[in-house]
Amino acid sequence: MKNAMQRLNSLILQKDSRICAGLDPTWEGIPDSFKKRLVPEFSDEEIAKLSDEEREELMAHCHDIVLYEYCVAYIEAVADIVPAIKINSAFFEKEGAEDLYWDVATAAKEMGLFVIGDVKRADIGSTSAAYADAYLGENSPFDAITINPYFGTDGVMPFMKLAKENGKGVFVLVKTSNQSSKEIQDLRLKDGRKVYEAVADMVLSWAEEVDGVDQLGEECSMIGAVVGATHKEEAAELTWKMDQVFFLVPGYGMQGATAQDVACVFDVNGTGAIVNSSRGIMQAYKKECWKDQYSEEMWAEAARAEAIRATKEINDAIIRYWDD
Amino acid sequence: MKNAMQRLNSLILQKDSRICAGLDPTWEGIPDSFKKRLVPEFSDEEIAKLSDEEREELMAHCHDIVLYEYCVAYIEAVADIVPAIKINSAFFEKEGAEDLYWDVATAAKEMGLFVIGDVKRADIGSTSAAYADAYLGENSPFDAITINPYFGTDGVMPFMKLAKENGKGVFVLVKTSNQSSKEIQDLRLKDGRKVYEAVADMVLSWAEEVDGVDQLGEECSMIGAVVGATHKEEAAELTWKMDQVFFLVPGYGMQGATAQDVACVFDVNGTGAIVNSSRGIMQAYKKECWKDQYSEEMWAEAARAEAIRATKEINDAIIRYWDD
Repeated sequence: MKNAMQRLNSLILQKDSRICAGLDPTWEGIPDSFKKRLVPEFSDEEIAKLSDEEREELMAHCHDIVLYEYCVAYIEAVADIVPAIKINSAFFEKEGAEDLYWDVATAAKEMGLFVIGDVKRADIGSTSAAYADAYLGENSPFDAITINPYFGTDGVMPFMKLAKENGKGVFVLVKTSNQSSKEIQDLRLKDGRKVYEAVADMVLSWAEEVDGVDQLGEECSMIGAVVGATHKEEAAELTWKMDQVFFLVPGYGMQGATAQDVACVFDVNGTGAIVNSSRGIMQAYKKECWKDQYSEEMWAEAARAEAIRATKEINDAIIRYWDD
Repeated sequence: MKNAMQRLNSLILQKDSRICAGLDPTWEGIPDSFKKRLVPEFSDEEIAKLSDEEREELMAHCHDIVLYEYCVAYIEAVADIVPAIKINSAFFEKEGAEDLYWDVATAAKEMGLFVIGDVKRADIGSTSAAYADAYLGENSPFDAITINPYFGTDGVMPFMKLAKENGKGVFVLVKTSNQSSKEIQDLRLKDGRKVYEAVADMVLSWAEEVDGVDQLGEECSMIGAVVGATHKEEAAELTWKMDQVFFLVPGYGMQGATAQDVACVFDVNGTGAIVNSSRGIMQAYKKECWKDQYSEEMWAEAARAEAIRATKEINDAIIRYWDD
């Protein structure tokens, strides 16, 4: 029986893609043409007849339908290209549409994708257990979620234990892709390590405890790590240190990391990691390389084209990396 | 114009209470007698007549009504005693009732309480900005939220900037109350500090940047810190180091810290901090000291009695501490 990360490795090989399509939907980011197609048009006269409450209800209804359909159209556009999708809870919370977070994840699951809940949760044990129940329960559409290590073992173990029970995975933040990640994560410890290296060591010991990494052979642990591609040397170093830990790698594309930068996190089979691209794919129609070919109305086609392009770019970079 | 933490200090003095009532609702924790009072009784015959969908809808409807009414009854029971309530998002997400999180916060706000959204969010800047929009917007019922520092400045600044704009506050996790907090937070740095002390220094520099701590005089910054009472020496030390930073102090009661342990985080006026008690108040009717007096049906009265008792216990401990 494969664990979550091993299933993800299989999907990567099956689709020959190492791209995770990120979904960070904002109302402003949804093309106007898409909104117009879905929102029924009412004349000013008709709208004037509505009570305040009816008008508000209509707007909320339209908002949620557009948001949901946009997310589903995005996932459909890339579903046969990429093995995984990462859905960011922040943007659903911002839109006051937490229910849709689950509906969209369910739709992605039904399209056969590996679904990552990018929630970055963590708290003391009893509260982490409640978050774990929410996202890693037996019937959750999520295959894995991201979690924050700051609380230490008793804050992360409830996620890991429930994930283990239900064949799910967790990605622990080790070295994040943002520039300020250095402020805490790169602090130099008395023993010579940096904080993120100490966290990496903890991830290894959690993996050993939860799924007996020693017994995995060459296979991946169900506990993965978030390692930003924007810090190339650190990512390369961590790849050596954590060879049985699957990496979720943000930072490629809009955040600045190149395909060459991320190639080093993959093993010789091109597995063991997945590279996220959110804005780069979602807003591909705005990119220099696509804007002549795809109009705003063709945003989904552009997203698909970019997912194919990014897949090839990463695949080529990995081949070059291992050929050298 | 007072900032959020200064408003909280005023409420503390006005109510002469330094207790923040924590709200961590679980379905199992809601007394059966309360559930029965709210859920309409149907005969087996009547229920058999319903379609699967109707039955499911009825159950979900009852679930949300009971959860909401329980939360409101809890807040009502303590609203005139305590200055603040801390509402934990994990338990609403676990119950699939994210909408109620907002409804309950709004109810608490309407009762004149300082409402803390215990969400522990943080991510890279663009995502933190979305979370900030969700919880610290102008019309949000929350006065402040808890945030995680692991991403560093660019991950926390969107929260702080929006909080500043809208007269809200943030509490940064510095030293958490759980036992494993030592694993990362107490790591010794090369420069002699521990990680949590480095985070404390960052909080001070963020406070200086965002609201010009130098210009506050004796007043509190709008940026607060979470400091667990279960680590008494560290809490005392941090109190000296961060005299203009308001402390949200978990760990009292069920987690093991005593009133004597927490007294040291208050200034001589009994301000500058608030002590959270969640399970201790919510489930007071089960406690040795109350269970003879309050039956399960009287859980709200017991919560109120415990809020009064804890308020007095903390107040007395602070007087003793400053008398010594």
